Amino acid sequence: MLPPGSTIGILGVGQLGRMLASAAAKLGFRTAVFGPDADRSPAGHVTNHAVSGSYQDLAAVQAFASACDVVTYEFENVPAETAAAVVQSGKPLAPNADALAASQERLREKSLFRSLNIPTVDFWDIETADDLTNALAEAGPSILKTRRFGYDGKGQARLKGGEDAAQVLADLGGGPWILEAMAPFQRELSIIAARSANGDIAFFDLCENQHKDGILALSQIPAAASDAVTAQAREAAERVLTHLQYVGVLTVEFFDVDGALMANEMAPRVHNSGHHTLEACAVSQFEQHIRAVAGWPLRDAKTLRPMEMLNLVGAQANDWAALASDSEIDLTLYGKGEARPGRKMGHAVRPWKSS
Amino acid sequence: MLPPGSTIGILGVGQLGRMLASAAAKLGFRTAVFGPDADRSPAGHVTNHAVSGSYQDLAAVQAFASACDVVTYEFENVPAETAAAVVQSGKPLAPNADALAASQERLREKSLFRSLNIPTVDFWDIETADDLTNALAEAGPSILKTRRFGYDGKGQARLKGGEDAAQVLADLGGGPWILEAMAPFQRELSIIAARSANGDIAFFDLCENQHKDGILALSQIPAAASDAVTAQAREAAERVLTHLQYVGVLTVEFFDVDGALMANEMAPRVHNSGHHTLEACAVSQFEQHIRAVAGWPLRDAKTLRPMEMLNLVGAQANDWAALASDSEIDLTLYGKGEARPGRKMGHAVRPWKSS
Repeated sequence: MLPPGSTIGILGVGQLGRMLASAAAKLGFRTAVFGPDADRSPAGHVTNHAVSGSYQDLAAVQAFASACDVVTYEFENVPAETAAAVVQSGKPLAPNADALAASQERLREKSLFRSLNIPTVDFWDIETADDLTNALAEAGPSILKTRRFGYDGKGQARLKGGEDAAQVLADLGGGPWILEAMAPFQRELSIIAARSANGDIAFFDLCENQHKDGILALSQIPAAASDAVTAQAREAAERVLTHLQYVGVLTVEFFDVDGALMANEMAPRVHNSGHHTLEACAVSQFEQHIRAVAGWPLRDAKTLRPMEMLNLVGAQANDWAALASDSEIDLTLYGKGEARPGRKMGHAVRPWKSS
Repeated sequence: MLPPGSTIGILGVGQLGRMLASAAAKLGFRTAVFGPDADRSPAGHVTNHAVSGSYQDLAAVQAFASACDVVTYEFENVPAETAAAVVQSGKPLAPNADALAASQERLREKSLFRSLNIPTVDFWDIETADDLTNALAEAGPSILKTRRFGYDGKGQARLKGGEDAAQVLADLGGGPWILEAMAPFQRELSIIAARSANGDIAFFDLCENQHKDGILALSQIPAAASDAVTAQAREAAERVLTHLQYVGVLTVEFFDVDGALMANEMAPRVHNSGHHTLEACAVSQFEQHIRAVAGWPLRDAKTLRPMEMLNLVGAQANDWAALASDSEIDLTLYGKGEARPGRKMGHAVRPWKSS
């Protein structure tokens, strides 16, 4: 167990890093964050040390890691060489580099699910226009995605079949790609789970999520779910956690197709669909993650009060005064400047009656 | 309403400033803290700007205040000239200087209670040994206190009557003093209340507090209390808040003498007996205070889960590993270094069944 006063290093300086840093401070840890413009960032406002730097500046990354007792991250697109620089510093990286590698490349991610007997939609490896033409003939309506750097609906194109493959690839850019069959799902669920350094696993209740324009809009905890659905989600998360010898919080998102869950993607980190664990649960996803990476035991993550979270995206945050005046709403703002379209500015949590 | 991105300035850099800064950050505010060794302080670890300086350096205080949009404080012993320097900067001080003046001098505090028809124990103004000899003859068993700078049982002496007055004053030092009759109380209660800039008042439930060696050891919320007892506490807090045109969180501590409350002291700030409002209540005392000083509306402060808080004083914090391993306990540590005797290092909150 890392003693209080130890320094938790965080790669990434956005709202997830901010909430991780606050959770670490609550437990008596010092925090350091690393990323572009760290000193003016959401995480930089609440940390001991905000180190501005590029993830490609490996000497800077190594110096940063050397000043920490453990290093974690808030985003899955940490470059492999950046992760390697942390490891070379001799300080632990948690979750480990395998978890990063598996989750930052969609083909590898889906292949991992398949290898662990976790159901997914059908998918095809697309490297050329011919690959896409052939796959589309088989797949019908489907989604073409870049393998890397897609998030919040970016790097994706919906296809009906019959499109000009070369044109589609040129328009989307950023290959290689993966083509995924459309799942006839009724809803999207996510599970947030944590694994401690000694292998204990704790689950949060399932969250039911609604997206708008590719961005999470609403998340409710606990999702109404049968024991069978809950068991599928927990089993999937546990297989990934155990296989990767994972330490920290992992999120797996699912399509619910008539009670059968299909894993869509995973994130080796705290997740937007779990922000309301702060208000709803006996421990937050942020504290649970810090506990895991610090070698502390996990806490029981049970839900105490059903809550729903509304993301405040772009101009929605301009309603801050009305939101702050609604006594039922627990408001969190990320300390960002301009409310640009699509930018996550904060979230509002309120009581929710589970059906 | 101060918009998110505004800067809340906090005088004082201890654990109360730390928890205030975290609450302000949650609402999207920037924070700045001012005090000795601010950069290595509990509050300095979680703030945008930690400014190290002496409260007597009025130019530094004024420069600090000028960079903030509103200034508040975490301790009642802010010197009057320091408060005046903030006011001279043109930035609002909340709670105001009258609240500071009334609460940092025990005779003035008790006199305010009396003037507002809030019951207190009998008390005597002690400036000389003769004053004390005369008062002791009337009072019998009683407590002699310095009027200023007493906290956590410091600056106090218990007297039986018949002591050598001159010797007692020389031993205690730090005059002038106040002599207070002993109250035959069964328990100690505190109420935390807030008043917004537009005069709205919100109350937390009563806390029942147990002290050890003059330091708060345990606090439980909500205290078992009749409507009559609750009404006395609320009425007292409301009178003080309204009289002082107060903005922010105020705490009043009471002796409960057979269901009759006698005001013991007040603090113009968030209070150690309210730390568990973070886990127990719909809003924390810290967020409620920030809302008030930022001109935001208050939230309903209702208790959602009865909780009790154990202070971790001095060596008690050395048990951090055991406390962190008890899944029922929500642990908060203040980021302090050495666990010196009497030093508040953190607190542990756990569910409590109200009787």
